[in-house]
Amino acid sequence: MQAEIITIGDEILIGQIVDTNSAFISKALNKIGVSVYQITSIQDDKAHILDALKSANSRSQLVILTGGLGPTKDDITKHTLCEYFGDTLVENKVVLEHIEFLFKKYISTPISDMNRLQALVPSRAQVLHNAYGTAPGIWMENKGTVFVSMPGVPFEMKGLIKDQVIPKIRKQFKRPYILHKTIMTYGLGESAIAEKIADWENDLPETIKLAYLPSLGRVRLRLSTKGTHKEALVTAIDAEVKKLYPLIGDIIYGEEEDESIEALVAKLLTDKKYTLSTAESFTGGKISNSLTAMPGASKYFKGALVSYATATKIETLGVPKALVDKHSVVSAEVACAMATNVKELLGTDFAVATTGNAGPEKGDSQVPIGTVFIAIASPKGTFAQQFTMGNHRERIVQKSVNKAFELLQKEIINF
Amino acid sequence: MQAEIITIGDEILIGQIVDTNSAFISKALNKIGVSVYQITSIQDDKAHILDALKSANSRSQLVILTGGLGPTKDDITKHTLCEYFGDTLVENKVVLEHIEFLFKKYISTPISDMNRLQALVPSRAQVLHNAYGTAPGIWMENKGTVFVSMPGVPFEMKGLIKDQVIPKIRKQFKRPYILHKTIMTYGLGESAIAEKIADWENDLPETIKLAYLPSLGRVRLRLSTKGTHKEALVTAIDAEVKKLYPLIGDIIYGEEEDESIEALVAKLLTDKKYTLSTAESFTGGKISNSLTAMPGASKYFKGALVSYATATKIETLGVPKALVDKHSVVSAEVACAMATNVKELLGTDFAVATTGNAGPEKGDSQVPIGTVFIAIASPKGTFAQQFTMGNHRERIVQKSVNKAFELLQKEIINF
Repeated sequence: MQAEIITIGDEILIGQIVDTNSAFISKALNKIGVSVYQITSIQDDKAHILDALKSANSRSQLVILTGGLGPTKDDITKHTLCEYFGDTLVENKVVLEHIEFLFKKYISTPISDMNRLQALVPSRAQVLHNAYGTAPGIWMENKGTVFVSMPGVPFEMKGLIKDQVIPKIRKQFKRPYILHKTIMTYGLGESAIAEKIADWENDLPETIKLAYLPSLGRVRLRLSTKGTHKEALVTAIDAEVKKLYPLIGDIIYGEEEDESIEALVAKLLTDKKYTLSTAESFTGGKISNSLTAMPGASKYFKGALVSYATATKIETLGVPKALVDKHSVVSAEVACAMATNVKELLGTDFAVATTGNAGPEKGDSQVPIGTVFIAIASPKGTFAQQFTMGNHRERIVQKSVNKAFELLQKEIINF
Repeated sequence: MQAEIITIGDEILIGQIVDTNSAFISKALNKIGVSVYQITSIQDDKAHILDALKSANSRSQLVILTGGLGPTKDDITKHTLCEYFGDTLVENKVVLEHIEFLFKKYISTPISDMNRLQALVPSRAQVLHNAYGTAPGIWMENKGTVFVSMPGVPFEMKGLIKDQVIPKIRKQFKRPYILHKTIMTYGLGESAIAEKIADWENDLPETIKLAYLPSLGRVRLRLSTKGTHKEALVTAIDAEVKKLYPLIGDIIYGEEEDESIEALVAKLLTDKKYTLSTAESFTGGKISNSLTAMPGASKYFKGALVSYATATKIETLGVPKALVDKHSVVSAEVACAMATNVKELLGTDFAVATTGNAGPEKGDSQVPIGTVFIAIASPKGTFAQQFTMGNHRERIVQKSVNKAFELLQKEIINF
C-alpha cells in the first residue's frame, strides 16, 4: 500500500509559503501503515496537474491532493479533476447548506455567486464534509487508485484528514503496521555517535532501518520497521533499543518522536507540582512561548520577564547596577541574579534565565557574538553556565532555548 | 530557464520534518529569474533517486538536490550521483583540509575515518565550499542540465545557495526577469475582495498573473509577471497596483512579500524613535519573541512581562485584585490595566497587552474559548478591543498576535 501527495499552488514554487501540509499528511498516513512514496509540488497549471495525476495513478493506490480549491480564478484543481475523470461539476445541496450556515454564523452577510461556486463538485465524487471551511473535500476513484482533493488551508485540511480521510482509508485499504521509534540524544555529534554504535548498527536485522537526524546540538536516531504483526515489531525494536543504552545511555534524553524536551520538562513540573518562571534577555520570550504553546502550562508556569534592555534588567528585575558594571551584562553573575530574582519576584520553585549576545551587532557587552550564559535557580540555589553557540542569530537563540531546557530537566530530575 | 528541486530523505516522507529548504531555494532562484517547475521529495532509495534524476533531467536545465550527504550509512546521494553520471568518488584535498580545520576549531578531537569519508566527491564534480559544515556542495553537468547537490542541514544549505550556487547560476545561465509584487490586506475575506476587484481582475493584461493567498485573517494578493525588460515590468505592475487603491485601499497594510506586519511595526518604532513593551497573558511571549527574532530590536524594545498566572498579573504587574474580581481576568478592564502598567513599569512610549482564553480548557475566567482582549497603551491613553478568534489554540494565539500588531501599527501611524 503506497501513497503520494501532490500539493498544488504557485506560492509553494516561488517560495512564498512553506509546505507544512505534506508533513502533517505523511505523519497521519504513516501512523495507519500507509507509506508515502513521493511528495510532488506543482503549479496551478492544467497540463502540469494532469501530468502529475497520471504519473501518480500509475504508481500508487492513494493520491492525496491539496490546494487550488479556493473560490477565485487562480484555483483550477476541481476543473482539472473533472477533465481527468471525464466528469462534470454539479451543485451539491448539502455543501451549499453548509456554506450558507457558515456565512450566517461567522460573516453575517448573504452568500454571493462566487461563494456558491464552492458547492460545485464532480458528479461522481464522494463529498467529504469540511467542518471549518466552504470548500469540501472530494474522494474519487480511478482504476483502483483513490484520489482525495482537499483545500490547502492547513486547519481545514487537518480537520478533513482526521475526521474524514483517515477513517475512510482504514475501512477501504488493507495495511501493514509501520513502527518507528526515535531515540533522542544530546551532546554528541552524528559521526561520534555512529562510531560508538557501529557494531550495533552492523548487527541490526535487515528488517530494521536506522536513520540519523541531526539538528541544533541534538541527534535523533530513528528505527523503522514494518510487518503484519504489531507485537512482533514492537518486541524486535525494543530489543534493539535496549542494547543501545549500555553504548550511549548517557546522552539519551528520551524516546518517541513527539517527546520534545520542553514537553518532558512540562510533564516533570506538572507531575512533581513544581512551578517555573523565566527571565529572558536575548531569547526574547522564546522559552516562555515554547511552554505556553502547550496546553496545561497554567499548571506550572507563572510567567516570564523578558528583560531585553539592560535598564529593564536593573530597574524591573532588580539586578544590581554594580554587578552589571563589574562583570558586564552578559556574564554568569548577571544570569544568576536574573534567575534568582525572577524566582523570588514570581514566587516559583524553579527559574531559568538567559543573557547573551546573538548578534549581528554587539550589544551592551563586549563579549563575542555567540557567547551566552544560562542560569538555573532551584530551591537548592542558583548556578550559571557559559556556552558558545556559533554566529547565526536564529540558531544561537534556538540552541540556547534547547540548552536551557536540557539544564532545567537535569536539575528537576536531580532535585 | 526552468529548474527543479529534489529533496532526499525518509524523514520528510514520514512527516518527521517539514521541508523548509525548498521554499528557501525557490525564493532565491525566483529572485534571479529562474522558475521552479516542480519540487519532488523522495526516499533515501537508490532506484527512486535515479528515477527522479532522470525525470528532472528530461524537463529542466537546473536540478537542485538536498539531503542524503551525511557521514552515516543511511545517506546515499553521493554514491547514487556517481552511478547516474558513471563516475567514481575521489578524496578531495581542499575539502579534507576544511574538515580538519572545522574539527580543530569546534570539536577539538582528531577526525575519524568516518569524517574523512566526507571529503570524497565524484571525480568530475566541481566542489562548492561549505563554510558551515563538513559535506561540500557538488556541481555536475549532464547533457545541458546542471545538477547541484547540497547537504539538507538548513543553515549549511543556505550558505551554499547564497555564496556559491546563486553566483554560479548568474554567470552560466541567461535568465528573464521575474517580478512579483504582493499586496497585503487585512479585515476582508478572499471572496469579498474578489468581488470588489472583479472588474480590475478581468482587465488585467494576459502577462500579469494574480493569486489570492489567504491566511489567518489576512489575504495577500500576488501579482506576477516576467520578461526581458525589468523596467517595463515594474511600470506595468505598478500601474495595476495603483488602480487597486481606490477599490480596496482601506484594507491594504503593505506591499512587498517580505514585509511582515511585525517588521513594519519595528521599522515604524525605529524611525520614530519610540519604545515598546508588552504584557502578555495567553500569547505567552509570542509578541515579544516576534520582535526580538529580528535584529535591531534593542533599538525600540525594552521588554515584556509574560503574566501567565492571574497572581502574576496582580502581584508583579500591579493589576488591582478588585478589578479582576469585578470584571474577570479576561476583560477589557484588565487588558487596559496590564498595558498601562507595563508601559509605566518599563518606561516605554507604547505598550501592548493581551488577555484571553485560548483553550482547550477554561482558565480563571468563565468567558468562552476564543474570547480575547487586546489593549494598546500610547502617550494618548489606553484602549482595549474584544475579539472572537475561533476555538483552535494555536490559531487563537497567532491570530491575536497578528491583530495586536495591526492595532499597534494603526496607533503608531495615527499618533
